[in-house]
Amino acid sequence: MINLASDNVVGASRPVLEALLAANDGVAAPYGTDPFTAKATALLSEVFEREVQNFMVATGTGANALALAALTPPWGAVFCHAESHVMDDECGAPEMFTDGAKIVGVPGLNGKMTIDALEEQLARFGKGVVKSVQPSALSISQVTEAGTVYSLDEIRAFTALAKKHGLKTHLDGARFANAMLSLGCSAAEMTWKAGIDVVTFGASKNGCLACEAVIFFDPALAENFQYRRKRGGHTLSKGRLLGAQMIGYLENDHWIKNATHANAMAQKLANGLKQIAGARLPWSVDANEVFVVIPQAAQKALDEGEIRAAPWSSNCVPDGFKIGADEAFLRFVTSFATKADEIDMVLATLSGRRAAAE
Amino acid sequence: MINLASDNVVGASRPVLEALLAANDGVAAPYGTDPFTAKATALLSEVFEREVQNFMVATGTGANALALAALTPPWGAVFCHAESHVMDDECGAPEMFTDGAKIVGVPGLNGKMTIDALEEQLARFGKGVVKSVQPSALSISQVTEAGTVYSLDEIRAFTALAKKHGLKTHLDGARFANAMLSLGCSAAEMTWKAGIDVVTFGASKNGCLACEAVIFFDPALAENFQYRRKRGGHTLSKGRLLGAQMIGYLENDHWIKNATHANAMAQKLANGLKQIAGARLPWSVDANEVFVVIPQAAQKALDEGEIRAAPWSSNCVPDGFKIGADEAFLRFVTSFATKADEIDMVLATLSGRRAAAE
Amino acid sequence: MINLASDNVVGASRPVLEALLAANDGVAAPYGTDPFTAKATALLSEVFEREVQNFMVATGTGANALALAALTPPWGAVFCHAESHVMDDECGAPEMFTDGAKIVGVPGLNGKMTIDALEEQLARFGKGVVKSVQPSALSISQVTEAGTVYSLDEIRAFTALAKKHGLKTHLDGARFANAMLSLGCSAAEMTWKAGIDVVTFGASKNGCLACEAVIFFDPALAENFQYRRKRGGHTLSKGRLLGAQMIGYLENDHWIKNATHANAMAQKLANGLKQIAGARLPWSVDANEVFVVIPQAAQKALDEGEIRAAPWSSNCVPDGFKIGADEAFLRFVTSFATKADEIDMVLATLSGRRAAAE
Amino acid sequence: MINLASDNVVGASRPVLEALLAANDGVAAPYGTDPFTAKATALLSEVFEREVQNFMVATGTGANALALAALTPPWGAVFCHAESHVMDDECGAPEMFTDGAKIVGVPGLNGKMTIDALEEQLARFGKGVVKSVQPSALSISQVTEAGTVYSLDEIRAFTALAKKHGLKTHLDGARFANAMLSLGCSAAEMTWKAGIDVVTFGASKNGCLACEAVIFFDPALAENFQYRRKRGGHTLSKGRLLGAQMIGYLENDHWIKNATHANAMAQKLANGLKQIAGARLPWSVDANEVFVVIPQAAQKALDEGEIRAAPWSSNCVPDGFKIGADEAFLRFVTSFATKADEIDMVLATLSGRRAAAE
Repeated sequence: MINLASDNVVGASRPVLEALLAANDGVAAPYGTDPFTAKATALLSEVFEREVQNFMVATGTGANALALAALTPPWGAVFCHAESHVMDDECGAPEMFTDGAKIVGVPGLNGKMTIDALEEQLARFGKGVVKSVQPSALSISQVTEAGTVYSLDEIRAFTALAKKHGLKTHLDGARFANAMLSLGCSAAEMTWKAGIDVVTFGASKNGCLACEAVIFFDPALAENFQYRRKRGGHTLSKGRLLGAQMIGYLENDHWIKNATHANAMAQKLANGLKQIAGARLPWSVDANEVFVVIPQAAQKALDEGEIRAAPWSSNCVPDGFKIGADEAFLRFVTSFATKADEIDMVLATLSGRRAAAE
Repeated sequence: MINLASDNVVGASRPVLEALLAANDGVAAPYGTDPFTAKATALLSEVFEREVQNFMVATGTGANALALAALTPPWGAVFCHAESHVMDDECGAPEMFTDGAKIVGVPGLNGKMTIDALEEQLARFGKGVVKSVQPSALSISQVTEAGTVYSLDEIRAFTALAKKHGLKTHLDGARFANAMLSLGCSAAEMTWKAGIDVVTFGASKNGCLACEAVIFFDPALAENFQYRRKRGGHTLSKGRLLGAQMIGYLENDHWIKNATHANAMAQKLANGLKQIAGARLPWSVDANEVFVVIPQAAQKALDEGEIRAAPWSSNCVPDGFKIGADEAFLRFVTSFATKADEIDMVLATLSGRRAAAE
Repeated sequence: MINLASDNVVGASRPVLEALLAANDGVAAPYGTDPFTAKATALLSEVFEREVQNFMVATGTGANALALAALTPPWGAVFCHAESHVMDDECGAPEMFTDGAKIVGVPGLNGKMTIDALEEQLARFGKGVVKSVQPSALSISQVTEAGTVYSLDEIRAFTALAKKHGLKTHLDGARFANAMLSLGCSAAEMTWKAGIDVVTFGASKNGCLACEAVIFFDPALAENFQYRRKRGGHTLSKGRLLGAQMIGYLENDHWIKNATHANAMAQKLANGLKQIAGARLPWSVDANEVFVVIPQAAQKALDEGEIRAAPWSSNCVPDGFKIGADEAFLRFVTSFATKADEIDMVLATLSGRRAAAE
Repeated sequence: MINLASDNVVGASRPVLEALLAANDGVAAPYGTDPFTAKATALLSEVFEREVQNFMVATGTGANALALAALTPPWGAVFCHAESHVMDDECGAPEMFTDGAKIVGVPGLNGKMTIDALEEQLARFGKGVVKSVQPSALSISQVTEAGTVYSLDEIRAFTALAKKHGLKTHLDGARFANAMLSLGCSAAEMTWKAGIDVVTFGASKNGCLACEAVIFFDPALAENFQYRRKRGGHTLSKGRLLGAQMIGYLENDHWIKNATHANAMAQKLANGLKQIAGARLPWSVDANEVFVVIPQAAQKALDEGEIRAAPWSSNCVPDGFKIGADEAFLRFVTSFATKADEIDMVLATLSGRRAAAE
């Protein structure tokens, strides 16, 4: 079976596992006070080219919800793309952890908010108007839900608008590495140098088993975060589990290599799809996700060939990009573990070459 | 260094690690729909001698807070020992996850509530009295914060009183295996056969890295638990991490062996302490925790010998059991990884034999 | 000064005040167990032609937030018009009282949701899809934020769709009487006979000082509402304040008379406006609110004449209904206290006749 | 019938009603921006001898819960007497409004915390200890639940200890006037001059219908309170209802006169009780509440004479003060409306003189 439905269907990459094994023996202080966590923080400070506050947790939903809670009061509004993960895919965790802040969707094609749409949403909530929740934070998903990537200029434009309105800024980097490599920039450039206050630095999808770091650049913002994390049940008892994964992930540029590979596999898939009659890509493939419309017959071939992609909602495609009743809309996600011949097999199956060969 | 401050200062035991490695390769569905999780649930159903609803998470605080939230409305009262983990050690997670229920402490010596004290606390909150939060759940810590273990008769007496008042019952089994072996009973006997509705089945302290199962016996109580867990950020993306740990933990009676060893090490330590002049145990050693008062000089010897125990609050000792200004009150916790010669070394250090030998 | 900015800028009507005075002397049991509250409930049961559960509170925001909390779990989604009061004007009270449910805006012209738009929003949240908040309740504002009124057929269509998806239904009747008289129907027809489960029966705007009743038709839904109300701080100690107001409001069809008058004043204003050059109404005037675009010069005349209306956001006007830079968009709200000659004065001022006369 | 079960069983006093009537006609801006509210705030600033931030609401539970929420984060601990109103009588409102802070009971006889007991409770929660909720606020009930009154020295000792631990301080003054007159001090002396940060200034029990003011002395603490109040549904639409009551309450020392009378009636009752064989007072009568143990026969006489007091829990009586099976423990509360001959009748009934006379 070839499963490209998501990049969380695979396990850990080898260096991450080995770091875990290396950290297992002997005693270590609990609750994130262990030397592995300390080393992970040091490595992250190197990655971000400044001292960071690092709070690791086991899930992306936990990381995002905790991060947003640090940026908004309960009577605040948090702005994010209308189809983003914090809006649609966390069962209301941001509402729970912020004690009921309003998560406000900002529309935009290809998974990206537009400046105009953000301004329109900001205008709904008057500063100091008591009946209105107060604009407090902006969350940018990078990679977006559509697999696209904001340029540095785009990020800077959003954070500038946010700062003008007094908002704090969050970057949901569940696929941080894939985005960074897509842009060819540094972690610092994509975050604090572009006006980001807090980052969910995702590692689970790109090689770890369960490890996401909430990274603060301003210690004042992080002041009470340790209580938030503990109270949310997100402080692991044996903190080495998180510290060791992050060490294995970051050392020797392992994370870079993993994301480079995943992105390359997505490009390979996208390039192949462009050659296949009937396959249509609604927007660019910027990182490790490929969205494509294929004929139902091709879907059937995938099923028969035990190849899995994720059926996707057509809500988000651009106006005019019609999906026919005889078509399927799919998401393929490549990972560090995706093999080139798996992509070849997907393409062969979709193009009908596989059936012909068998 | 010998660190017996807690049983969370060690890593995973070997079979758990191996199960993790065995589960790592290949694709598996995410969010707990993987075959490892399914197998873990099947094994837990065997352990509990009936079909169970199993929701695994990475932390004990998450497990407890989520479990209690399933048992009480926000206007409810949850009763637990006045010094229990859910009361004192979770930074208000139960209050957060229950959306503000009142956690009511029930006093009692040796870490155990008394029936009289529970009745007295229940009497504070009138059923149907609108100004009063409504008694909703009882949480029993087994092993208790004092390392003691409720007998089956005691558990049954508490659950009977709870049921009489319409409460649901939770067992916080962070050290489930240690308690069960202390009683020499089955998992079923210590839980649903004794009137328990929901269990936090702890595995992290007894061999796993981060794995606790919230176990329901009545599917109706578990009805919405999947939303609670997701919303709390406690649904792991790569569910195999939890499933595999639990498989390694349960198969071949590994968990039984680990806890048997930990309990034996605690007995060895306790027996040795009883021979040492100046060492005084405030209550029985039932499982894998040893609380002891020692002279400050002995504490100094421990420090010099790089032996760590946890300084403990004297609040909980019985009236009359005075701790002098020249004494220290300590908790030692043994684990699957504790070695007999480590215990010997602790005893030699405390008795002065080590210094004499050096 | 003539203030038509809202119907909450006036005090109580005379019969309500008199009922308050009549109820003031003597002792009465507290917390809503007084005979005035009991009589109010009996009167409301007559009004709704069946036995109702009646929970009175002092504010509309409290009433709405409490009502919605009774209809959704924290992981639920509540659907309402995108510009409704529960969405925009309660500073997140619904999120607070529901412990973080998602309030989902359904767009639609003239303050009314459309069935299509509701279906589209419902489709975002898959039943049983764990990552998704679960559709739980629909809230219909009647009168709408645009001053329009849903027909009985429209209400029935919405509640039918809601029931099909397993939602409970709420009617925000802050201006209940104005809507009912606009439709010429009974209170029963506009609510439970049309599929409504819970009503915010507003009385403050139509003659009371501070009195809103949360009305349940199904006692099972109301089961825990007394705890919710108390816990929200919305159970008045001297319950007679609410009971007496409601008695004065309902007896002798006083509420009907008040709303009839307010609606008539709005019609008079609307009819007059239609004769004034440059005044444009974006949609129908169904109850006691008149929205109108006027030239800036006319706005100036209002200011000079000490006539106040509420400046309104142009977000909600239909596409194509452009508001020029030299125009103002205003809301006028009439009440039981509005005098015909005040309307005449407004019209004279807007038409320029007043300036000419002076 | 004579009902002395509480001071909330009576309506409003005449000057309060008249102020309400006087404020009823004409238009006024909504949501607390009206001139009546402004005047009330000015009067309160006079009462407290400095400029205050004044937020009026309709209930004491709302006032207390909102006030505490301004003083603690969700991971905070709020200390109060173990039998105080915020602990026992608000159905968890403080937990709800603080988003789940822990309300910690401090024991003490006669309704008063002791310094030692507070220190003991503070010691449970280590500053900076992540697993522990963080001590954040102290709430002092003045009058206490036992009807006793803290001396100014006592208040100062508590606030000094609180400040030393970094806590903010709240005074629950549901019966503020009765306490102040008992002490013979000024409002300023009993609050900010004694180290209090926020006051619930109760007016409902002493002459109003529904009016409590949350008073801040430091504007920084009140910064976001307007959002909290709105979000809690506690911002009245027709703010004049609150403003006018408070004006009537404060002008011409009306509130002083009311409380003076109520306290005098309680003294009269207490003095009479001391003459009655079999009547025993467990502690001093400091304000307008009288707690007394009487023989069951006397209770029967009260019932037959249609005299109501509140049966009270014996939990709070001092050790050694035994209440026999043939005795009843009652609370009598006097108010501005209590008549001297009602007290005479109560005493006559209890002493058996009434029965003899009939």
